[in-house]
Amino acid sequence: MQKGEVLTENAVVDLLGVLAYGELTAFDRLAEDARMAPTTAGRAALATMAAAEMGHFGLLCNRLIELGADPEKAMSPFAAPIDAFHDGTRPSTWLEGLVKAYVGDGLAADFYREVSNFLDDSTRALVLSVLADTGHACFAVREVRAAIRADPAIGGRLALWARRLVGEALTQSQRVIAERDQLAELLINGTGDLAGVSELLNRITSAHTVRMSQLGLSS
Amino acid sequence: MQKGEVLTENAVVDLLGVLAYGELTAFDRLAEDARMAPTTAGRAALATMAAAEMGHFGLLCNRLIELGADPEKAMSPFAAPIDAFHDGTRPSTWLEGLVKAYVGDGLAADFYREVSNFLDDSTRALVLSVLADTGHACFAVREVRAAIRADPAIGGRLALWARRLVGEALTQSQRVIAERDQLAELLINGTGDLAGVSELLNRITSAHTVRMSQLGLSS
Repeated sequence: MQKGEVLTENAVVDLLGVLAYGELTAFDRLAEDARMAPTTAGRAALATMAAAEMGHFGLLCNRLIELGADPEKAMSPFAAPIDAFHDGTRPSTWLEGLVKAYVGDGLAADFYREVSNFLDDSTRALVLSVLADTGHACFAVREVRAAIRADPAIGGRLALWARRLVGEALTQSQRVIAERDQLAELLINGTGDLAGVSELLNRITSAHTVRMSQLGLSS
Repeated sequence: MQKGEVLTENAVVDLLGVLAYGELTAFDRLAEDARMAPTTAGRAALATMAAAEMGHFGLLCNRLIELGADPEKAMSPFAAPIDAFHDGTRPSTWLEGLVKAYVGDGLAADFYREVSNFLDDSTRALVLSVLADTGHACFAVREVRAAIRADPAIGGRLALWARRLVGEALTQSQRVIAERDQLAELLINGTGDLAGVSELLNRITSAHTVRMSQLGLSS
């Protein structure tokens, strides 16, 4: 099983690498969104959440170094698809930014949580800790619901925006999986077979529907 | 001395307010500069420093709340001059951003350290802790010196840039002092008289000259 073990270790480096680059871009995105905040309090709230992402980023880099990997190299295969996702879904309003963070991060976190089940205990604990919500979810739900209450037409536009986010996320995820054999293997071996992968996707889709209704949006 | 005490407490709220808004904009600026970084490692280094500023911001807001002040209100008088400083000195390159952070934050930190001598022990300890360098100074010196070694002409341009920063910082500081009587009073009472203020400015100028030569720039 030597080959299998090497594959798993490569897959773990890949997983920590994609998570780390995701945290770095989450920082950027929250920092940008903070500048769109209608109040100084909102701006401070988002900047504080951005700062928390860098705490997670540090934990992931430390673990990569422990595993003998170079964080910069581990992140590099994922820079292009993650940047492409963000470039293709640049929010033009404060509310679009909040929906993107809530819906996009929620989807990503659900996916990583599923994958963490296939990892050793200490890596799983690390992955779950960096996925812990930094307070953004509650904040986004409160702001978006208040905005829709004030102007119900906003709900329809934001629902369309959320659908575009999901489409773009799927496109970029498929691109990553197609290029990284070890990640695809981890996914199929972990869930058992393709039917297992399909159940995993169903669980993620259900959780997404729940999140959309929490925001007051139809999915 | 009732009047004097009230004045001092207002001056403390002012001082914490200007520091807090300064940290929030430092976060923004470092987050923006991070995007200009030539490498992912440089980007991560700056984003981590930005995150540390939000830690300081949180400490300042907590103290303002302890003092019965509203952080948003305490910051608001300083938003316009600090934003004007940043709008007037927007770096167009990665190196200009580093020089701005090193020279500008250095000047501001020296000024706040001087003022902290006039405060009660616990406020002074807080102010000194939020002024602690977040690792940016060493990083900036290393990058700027390496760039000048590679192309000495850069040194002249960056020295001019630093002079522009100092000019704009003085303009905006004078604007703040002119508008906030209690801060001006704290400064004059703290140093003893106008001669004391002049000595304070001399100390700050000397420290600035030392920083410029550390960067390899003439001041």
